[in-house]
Amino acid sequence: MIKAGDFVLLYHSEDFKFLVLVQETGMFSTHRGNLSFSDIFGKSFGDWVETQMGARFYLLKPTLSDLMLKVKRTTTIVYPKDTGLMLLQTLVFPGARVIEVGSGSGALTTVLANFVRPDGRVYSYEKRMEFSVNARENVARYHLEGVCEFFVADPAEQGFLQQEVDAVFLDVPEPWLLVGAAKRALKNGYALAALVPTVEQLRRLTSALGAERFVRIRAKEILERGLFLRETGIRPVDRMVAHTAYLVFAHKATVEEAAIKE
Amino acid sequence: MIKAGDFVLLYHSEDFKFLVLVQETGMFSTHRGNLSFSDIFGKSFGDWVETQMGARFYLLKPTLSDLMLKVKRTTTIVYPKDTGLMLLQTLVFPGARVIEVGSGSGALTTVLANFVRPDGRVYSYEKRMEFSVNARENVARYHLEGVCEFFVADPAEQGFLQQEVDAVFLDVPEPWLLVGAAKRALKNGYALAALVPTVEQLRRLTSALGAERFVRIRAKEILERGLFLRETGIRPVDRMVAHTAYLVFAHKATVEEAAIKE
Amino acid sequence: MIKAGDFVLLYHSEDFKFLVLVQETGMFSTHRGNLSFSDIFGKSFGDWVETQMGARFYLLKPTLSDLMLKVKRTTTIVYPKDTGLMLLQTLVFPGARVIEVGSGSGALTTVLANFVRPDGRVYSYEKRMEFSVNARENVARYHLEGVCEFFVADPAEQGFLQQEVDAVFLDVPEPWLLVGAAKRALKNGYALAALVPTVEQLRRLTSALGAERFVRIRAKEILERGLFLRETGIRPVDRMVAHTAYLVFAHKATVEEAAIKE
Amino acid sequence: MIKAGDFVLLYHSEDFKFLVLVQETGMFSTHRGNLSFSDIFGKSFGDWVETQMGARFYLLKPTLSDLMLKVKRTTTIVYPKDTGLMLLQTLVFPGARVIEVGSGSGALTTVLANFVRPDGRVYSYEKRMEFSVNARENVARYHLEGVCEFFVADPAEQGFLQQEVDAVFLDVPEPWLLVGAAKRALKNGYALAALVPTVEQLRRLTSALGAERFVRIRAKEILERGLFLRETGIRPVDRMVAHTAYLVFAHKATVEEAAIKE
Repeated sequence: MIKAGDFVLLYHSEDFKFLVLVQETGMFSTHRGNLSFSDIFGKSFGDWVETQMGARFYLLKPTLSDLMLKVKRTTTIVYPKDTGLMLLQTLVFPGARVIEVGSGSGALTTVLANFVRPDGRVYSYEKRMEFSVNARENVARYHLEGVCEFFVADPAEQGFLQQEVDAVFLDVPEPWLLVGAAKRALKNGYALAALVPTVEQLRRLTSALGAERFVRIRAKEILERGLFLRETGIRPVDRMVAHTAYLVFAHKATVEEAAIKE
Repeated sequence: MIKAGDFVLLYHSEDFKFLVLVQETGMFSTHRGNLSFSDIFGKSFGDWVETQMGARFYLLKPTLSDLMLKVKRTTTIVYPKDTGLMLLQTLVFPGARVIEVGSGSGALTTVLANFVRPDGRVYSYEKRMEFSVNARENVARYHLEGVCEFFVADPAEQGFLQQEVDAVFLDVPEPWLLVGAAKRALKNGYALAALVPTVEQLRRLTSALGAERFVRIRAKEILERGLFLRETGIRPVDRMVAHTAYLVFAHKATVEEAAIKE
Repeated sequence: MIKAGDFVLLYHSEDFKFLVLVQETGMFSTHRGNLSFSDIFGKSFGDWVETQMGARFYLLKPTLSDLMLKVKRTTTIVYPKDTGLMLLQTLVFPGARVIEVGSGSGALTTVLANFVRPDGRVYSYEKRMEFSVNARENVARYHLEGVCEFFVADPAEQGFLQQEVDAVFLDVPEPWLLVGAAKRALKNGYALAALVPTVEQLRRLTSALGAERFVRIRAKEILERGLFLRETGIRPVDRMVAHTAYLVFAHKATVEEAAIKE
Repeated sequence: MIKAGDFVLLYHSEDFKFLVLVQETGMFSTHRGNLSFSDIFGKSFGDWVETQMGARFYLLKPTLSDLMLKVKRTTTIVYPKDTGLMLLQTLVFPGARVIEVGSGSGALTTVLANFVRPDGRVYSYEKRMEFSVNARENVARYHLEGVCEFFVADPAEQGFLQQEVDAVFLDVPEPWLLVGAAKRALKNGYALAALVPTVEQLRRLTSALGAERFVRIRAKEILERGLFLRETGIRPVDRMVAHTAYLVFAHKATVEEAAIKE
């Protein structure tokens, strides 16, 4: 039974859908008509409702991808296609303690929080106050604020307050400035992930990782292509996202410079 | 401190690495020399050891991707690039109860178990006994057997024993035969994910999903391309995986046939 | 020296460029100001001119890709990325005689005409009169009409008037209806190319090709991704064309059904 | 009727095919048996022959792609997927005079020669004698030597001997060293194309092009993916080429540095 405080994906089609926080009273308006929250109460997920103009909306349980894409955005968000691989190329699990810089709009924070809950922690750093506030609000709307701590700080200068974390995620314009701090915060042998849009950033980041003795430094990119599933024929969609960012992964080695003899 | 029973990724390079279960005694042999487990005890993750032939191996914490790719294979495995998106397009979280068919080699089982632990459950169905046994052994090696239940059964005939599960994952040659059973087992409004290699399977599956009143039926494919990060220049790798499977996602609607008036 | 009748690519940027037929008198208007043709006369390709509003346009020699993309469109056009491969997977050369169905907007016709001239021929079939007229006009604007013959006809019913052609290009919704006619028109052992947007069309076409004893039946798709070359960094563009059509290639075998013993 | 001196593609399957120059006498051996040239004489393209071991080979007319891929290689060759686009993004046509550096194995030379013949010219520069000789031999085998001139020289030092050419193609490790010479050789307003494998080369090349006042500088990459067309289902192939080179295109502007006021 859907109740106030639940998030519902009001789904008419992929191009006409809304992530809605169900409230005690009021209504939700679209250009195809309105829906009163009182009509949604008591319905089950999977049921449908219609606007007075006859537009049918299914009441679907939002996925993590939906939550990510529907955060209130103040920044470019990390995409689900990239986030998925980042989860598998690092160490994220229930109970994990992970660091994220920057908070951005909280899209990645949401995913990390979902998977480390209830006993883990996402330490989310952001140097721009307004972004941090927005990210926190987005996470709070999703009822995930209990596992997140937000810091308005620049770890390039101050480092991280945490130690022995299971993973570090960097999504900032100059991630190379954070590599040293990331190394100090990360568990030995564990992995860091970063996103950089340009090849120049990729070069600078991987150089910095090498200089800090990270090993297994790799870069990948992910392309996601949808398909049209029409009665008249299956075919890939017409247009797609061509690029979001290069994904970089590396593991922290304990080796000190002096010990290197490669 | 690494101890017996830990999994370690012995890492020399991407092309020369091993996922090893550290044991009390004995050694690990490679064509570049041997490593005695006694040399690994007491080391930290992130340290390195050398074979008597001088090949250096870093002792890295294996990621989920490493665990997936290093299961003992009796079947084609689900790839990390696809698994990542499947996690975000469905409802997986600590405590979730999810169904998987078939168990395959346990690669996807491993990932699902990692994210639903410690209170969730992965119900893993497989009709071929030897595959089920192998998948179970792989999961047990990773110490994740506590959250998994394996069933040697064909749910196309018998349905699933569970109800109200949070997600269903189908990775079988004829997933359309399982759509009805999946619908009965799944929570209302929640999502199913499936993998199919060919377009004909994609057509049959999406038809079956439509017939069972699933909504928001979508198909996607994921391409992952690595980059060479050489001193002499950054460039994409020479060759890549061109295709594994089409990913299909759909949500269960409650609507009965009789109620349809579209 | 640029003169009346020349085509010039007025180039400000990739997003603001025009393919212009230089005329004796008059001017060319843009939202960034006007250019008088008299200012262009006597200029060299590679020179630039400015509108009275200060927008600079380079006078560039248009490439085949420019000509294709700037035809007056009545239909979807064949894309350069696909056309390029089609030229190399068939037999096109100066002096070749090739068949094309349908004429579409004349984009592919333009390319074929460019490469078979001056002694070859492009026989371009189209069953819709208005498309044929438009295609012919586009080709004529490019001064390539001398090597093209346009037919308003449906070869599925009437076959082709030509025999012993070097290549056949099919870009119609139901290319399988033309496979028999194509076989009769094509030189033994030579190749046919076709474009089909959906997988169902691909299946029907390849079945028809097999039934008519074509051999070496192959399908491919081409993805083209641009890069931003900015001072601040190189990176792929944000969005790209995800799909135009599957490309199908096959060679005509002489073998008769009765002779098959595979 | 096939005769001595003809090139034939002996085609069993995509993985078992041979480009053969038919000779007066002798035979062609495969691990599936032998074919006597006397059995091929008098056959038509499109016919088939069988080895004494029962392997059937179709006698197909080779496409340009076949000729490219079957040159005797001393270097990495330019791929058909890239060549196709290069033809359309520059000015190549029957009668065109074009420059190519380096000759490589003659694969691109072959394609250019095919399309500029019989009255055009391909001026092919290569500084390594043995490569030039091999490229010339490959082109000669294809009976295209009449439209090609090979130069063993380094145009970075000596420039090109030609002027007012219609296109310049650069496929060398340091194409930026040739940009000035290319500019002097190229017709005003016409286009140059280059291939570079790494991003660092891309950066240096585009900088050099800008410094020499080339305009409309663009970079693209092409991905080609094949499909399996099996009775049991259509699906993309398992593995594909992930990268060959970035393609760079630019037009020569006449503008002098002093005139710039951008």
